[in-house]
This record gives sequence, C-alpha cells and structure tokens, in this order.
Amino acid sequence: MKRIVVLGSTGSIGRSTLEVVRSLGGRVEIVGLSAHKRIGDLARQVSEHSPLAVAVGDPAMADEVRSAAGGRRVEVFSGPEGLLELVSLAEADLVVNALVGAAGILPTLAAIEAGKDVAIANKESLVAAGAVITARARAKGVNLIPVDSEHSAIYQCIRGEDRDAIKRIILTASGGALVDMPADEIADVKASQALRHPTWSMGRKVTIDSATLLNKGFEVIEAHWLFGIEADQIEVAIERRSIVHSLVEFVDGSVMALLSPPDMKLPIQYALTFPERVESPLPGLDLVSTGGIEFGQPDLGRFPCLRLAYEVAAIDGTAGAVLSAADEVAVDAFLEGRISFGEIYSVLRDVLSMHKVKDAASLDSVLKADAWAREQAAGIVKETSGRL
Amino acid sequence: MKRIVVLGSTGSIGRSTLEVVRSLGGRVEIVGLSAHKRIGDLARQVSEHSPLAVAVGDPAMADEVRSAAGGRRVEVFSGPEGLLELVSLAEADLVVNALVGAAGILPTLAAIEAGKDVAIANKESLVAAGAVITARARAKGVNLIPVDSEHSAIYQCIRGEDRDAIKRIILTASGGALVDMPADEIADVKASQALRHPTWSMGRKVTIDSATLLNKGFEVIEAHWLFGIEADQIEVAIERRSIVHSLVEFVDGSVMALLSPPDMKLPIQYALTFPERVESPLPGLDLVSTGGIEFGQPDLGRFPCLRLAYEVAAIDGTAGAVLSAADEVAVDAFLEGRISFGEIYSVLRDVLSMHKVKDAASLDSVLKADAWAREQAAGIVKETSGRL
Repeated sequence: MKRIVVLGSTGSIGRSTLEVVRSLGGRVEIVGLSAHKRIGDLARQVSEHSPLAVAVGDPAMADEVRSAAGGRRVEVFSGPEGLLELVSLAEADLVVNALVGAAGILPTLAAIEAGKDVAIANKESLVAAGAVITARARAKGVNLIPVDSEHSAIYQCIRGEDRDAIKRIILTASGGALVDMPADEIADVKASQALRHPTWSMGRKVTIDSATLLNKGFEVIEAHWLFGIEADQIEVAIERRSIVHSLVEFVDGSVMALLSPPDMKLPIQYALTFPERVESPLPGLDLVSTGGIEFGQPDLGRFPCLRLAYEVAAIDGTAGAVLSAADEVAVDAFLEGRISFGEIYSVLRDVLSMHKVKDAASLDSVLKADAWAREQAAGIVKETSGRL
Repeated sequence: MKRIVVLGSTGSIGRSTLEVVRSLGGRVEIVGLSAHKRIGDLARQVSEHSPLAVAVGDPAMADEVRSAAGGRRVEVFSGPEGLLELVSLAEADLVVNALVGAAGILPTLAAIEAGKDVAIANKESLVAAGAVITARARAKGVNLIPVDSEHSAIYQCIRGEDRDAIKRIILTASGGALVDMPADEIADVKASQALRHPTWSMGRKVTIDSATLLNKGFEVIEAHWLFGIEADQIEVAIERRSIVHSLVEFVDGSVMALLSPPDMKLPIQYALTFPERVESPLPGLDLVSTGGIEFGQPDLGRFPCLRLAYEVAAIDGTAGAVLSAADEVAVDAFLEGRISFGEIYSVLRDVLSMHKVKDAASLDSVLKADAWAREQAAGIVKETSGRL
C-alpha cells in the first residue's frame, strides 16, 4: 500500500491521478489533496477519498472541506505554507505534484526535504529550479519520478541501464495544433485554433505551449536535469500520432522506444506504482491497426520558441526560471487577447536578452529571477498590446 | 577483458563475431575457435587472434591450424568431443555458440556445465533442447544471452523489469523473401527466389526458414524457453524494414521496442559486452530518414510452417526437437531440388503427426526424438521426390 499526497488534485493531471488511484483498487491510498480554487470539486474528492489532510488556497474554504469529510477528521491547511505542511505529512510515501506554474517549486523542494519520493508533473520545478531540485533529491536519496509521458518513457527505457550508456535522448512531439500551418499564418492564429491539440487533451496553458513547441522546449530542459544529460544530447522528433512517447539511443547504437496509446493515465500509473508495474484497465496498443509511425524534424523557423529553449538548456543558471516565468505571463496575455500568438516568442526573446544569467544553485536566485522575468514580461506585454 | 570461445567461427555469425571482437579493440579476447570444414578460413583466424585452443571437424586438419599459429602453442581438439573440450577451457568466460543445427546442442550444455555464460546463436539448443538447457543454466547460475536480433531486443527491453510484468512478446519479422507472393505461387518457388531475403544477409538454411516463416516459428519456441513465457503470450508482427527488432508489452499496457539498422553485429556486440554497453562503429539509426514503420499480421494460410511452430511451442516436450530435425532434412532436400518449397511444410506436418510427444527433460529423449525425426523426414522426402 502506497500512501500519496496529490497537489493540484482538481486540475487535469490531478483528476487523472485520482482516476488511476480508483482503478488501482486499494494499492494506493490518498492521504492528502490540495486545490487552489475549485473547492466544490475538492469537497467531492475529500468525500470519496477521505484524506487525512488537505490544503486549500484560502482559509475561508476550510469549512466546506470539513463538512465534505462527513464525521471523519480532516486537517485543513491553507495558503502557500499549507502546501508545504501537506507534503511533509508523516503518513505520505509519495507526493504527486500536479500544480501548474512556479507555485509548484517550493512544494517539490519541501517534499524532497521531508524525504518523500516525488511524482513530478510540475514542469517549473525542473525548468526553473532543476539545479536545486535534482541536487537536493540526490542528497536526500529520494526518487523524482516523471509523470510527463515523454520523460516517463525515457525513465522506463533507461531502467536497468547504466547512465553512461546513454548517447542521446529523442523526445517525441505531436507537433501541436499548428504543425501543418504555413509560417506566414502562424503569427496571427487565434487562441481557439492554438487550443485545438491533435492528440492530447490538456490544460489551456500547456496546450498553447504545445502550439508554440515551447512545451517541448521545456521538456528538453526537464530531461537535461532529470537525466543529467547535456542539451546537445537531446533531440526532438515529430511523431504525430503520439504513440511513441520518446526514445533513447545508447552508445552501441541501439534505440529503445516506449509506445502506448496517448493517455496520461498510463505514465501516472507508472509513477504511482513504481518500481512495480500493475495491470491497467486502459485499452492496449494495437500495433497493426495503428498504421505507419513516422518521425519528422521540428521546424525551428516556424517554431522559434523551441530554439530559445535549447539555448536556455545550454546556458543553465537562472535562464530556465526566466523563460518559464516570462512564458506564464506571455501565454496569459495571449489567451486574454492582449498579444498575438507570434508575440509570445518576442516577449520571451526580449526578456531573455535582457537577463543577466546567474547561478541557479540556490532557490533564492531562482525565485528572484522568476519575479524579475514576470515584471519584465508584463512590461513588454503592456507595451506590445498598446501597439495593437 | 572478457575471454571468449567462438564455436562455428567461420560461419556467418562466427565471422561477424570476430569482426565485432576486432572493433572492440582489446575488450574481448579470443581464447578458442572452432570450425568444421573451412580450415583455410580457420587458419587465418588463428593467425590473427592467437587462440589458446581450437576445435576442428577432423584430426587431419590439426597441422594446418598449428602452422597458422606460427611459433605460438595452440591446442587442437577434434571431432564432436573436441567442441566439448573447447567450451570447457578454464580460461573462457563466455562461449559464443554460432554452430548451425543440432550439433550445437551438446556444446551449449557442456559450456553451461562448465559454468560459462553462453551467447546463444544456435537455435536448436533452445528449439529442440530448451527444457534441458534453460533448466541447467538456472541451476548453474549462468547467463544465456541471445544473439538473434529479436531475442536480443527482448532481452534488452526486459532488462531491469520484473518477469511477471511481461504481458506479451511481439517478435517482428521482415516477412522473408516471399512476403508479397500470392498463395498459389508460393508452393513452387525456386530456391533462388526463396534465398533472396529482403533485409538480412544470412546463411542458406536460415534464409529458407525465413521464407517459410518457420524461422520466426523457431524464434517463438526460443522466446518461450528463454523468457519463460507461454506460446499464447508470443505474437509475430510483420515489420518489413527490420528496424524494430521486437517489442514487449507489459501488464500496464506500455510497449517497449528496440530499434536499430539491421546488422547482426549489434546484437552480437551486446552479447559480448553484456552487461555493459560499448560504443560501436556501426552507423546509427536515422529515425527521420527511416520513413514509416508499419506492423502487419503474418498470413498463416500462406505460411503454415509458422502455425506448426506455434502448435509445437504449446505442446513442448520432444515436439521441438522433431520439428527442428525434420526441417534440417526438408530444407536440405529443397535446396538440392528433391522436394518443392511447398513440400517443406508437408514433410514437417507429416513427421509431427506421426510423433508421440515425450517429455524433453533429458537430453537423451531430445537426441532420440531428433534421430527419429530425421529418419522419418528422409523417408518422406524420398517418397515425395520419387513422385516428382
């Protein structure tokens, strides 16, 4: 029986995690849940899973959660500190961090410091704070188990292999909503077009990041930290069906690949049951009816955000925090109609070009870079949207 | 430094093994070689690799080998017993068994009894004697490392995984020389057509077995023994480019695949350097230029030998020995023009239908079944060719 805390349990990955827990029928027990705003959803989850504790955004939400627990006692933490208390629960073995954005960084670190394994779906923990997080995880001897389908695939492919045997990692990408769009139309696509992801159903922020291919760029940076691999050993290949979730080439030339139908519940289950594999109710892969699997090269001309991320992965330091924070601001602005799709890239490029990269070995420098980047990005967005 | 004995060093796999040893530059040392007839080739190999000992088919060949060794002392064993002495060399860590046919069974067993790991390219050791060989390998705690690209792929995919986590194995097949031939033309193809393998360059016997798909059937039986998996958990999928060397589906629905350009030197190197992976001079896989990878179902109607092998894998006992021995006779007869291509199947079917399956836990019962099957097959061939 593994006891888990799910941070961000009312979001897309959080809800899928609870579905997997349900299908695992008693192998995994929920001891903690957290939600920022969707208190009604959280109350229903509390009623079903009877966690020992929850964390909510606002102390005023505590009563609704307590009444959802029926007669059972449930500890309610609140605010950003509430998340840190939740991940440190003595009863927890594993923390699933499905928070979106930089708010996920501190809880990841707190979980590591408390000696918990972390199933990591929060990109910012690695993109912005990969140096600190991976160093602390090593020091504390805890596992960072990726939840992203790509990194889970790589994690599975290198299981039992020597780290030095890895020659390169090939992250696959569906290509996002705009993979076939001519260069001159991309700059002005509407949010509704960019939100139409061909294979994965995900949150709005990550779907836009998929359309710019920056999501894949973030994954390059994440892989760099998770697997201790240099940026120039990480490639991106377009595989439109999202059947091949990533590949690893070893020094002898053998290439290992992980395939499955595209369903986040599979890598989530892997992270929950690791190191065991457990039967899943999901439909398996029918290789014959799948049809042809092809790999293509991403077009860095049409998708310059991916190129930016490669540059960031090679620079290290606070550049990741800056890219990640600026992108939160830029994507928000795009979704609110304040900047065009093409301007997401220019905001990121301009913020990065103004940034003096510092060492990111301390969380403090990461959080400062994050705050600085948000401010700069907001300024550029304001200026840009004023021109519209 | 690993010290190896190569049985059948002048054959196709044997020569590739020596090429790999050369490219590994000092990581692997040849301490023993064997050849049955190609004494000139063997002499050249002895001159290059300076083994401590060799085994030859006929004692009369000893002098030529000794003179090839120059001034160095080389022990020369001969005849079938010579192979058994060679694999037991105190200096050897690993025996590469690249012998063709049932002659490979006893040397595999002798290597295991001498406590040597065996890199196994000799199909008959598993197809005919899998029960004995795998039981003895377990008892002696030695590794049986497959050299076949398909089984090597599976061996690599399940590394670090729990055996119980395997749901099914999917062996890939190029489809052989006749994959696209209409059913009514297959029965009468000429040897020259059946020998035209689309992707692999191999010996004549195995190329004909590829054309009937019996080679894939043998691989089903081998996988059954090597991985302790039931026949109904082993599938065959046509993958014409021979880029995907096989796949493993785990109980959670994840499918792991091993890809590389089709070159036997890759699985050979893996077997020689296991558990390490070592850089290889072979060209890597270019996923983008590879083009589409598709999987198809084998047609058991056009290729009934594969169906026979499945039946044999489910029956166990001496059926494997009978299928394997009868096939040696039938393929020889086909290559000599004494029976038609379609009659390979009828010979096998008829011999199997006459066989009373016995337990194959002792080598004695295996060798008796082998001898019986050869006799029966020879009789049927004679009768059949008399009708031509």
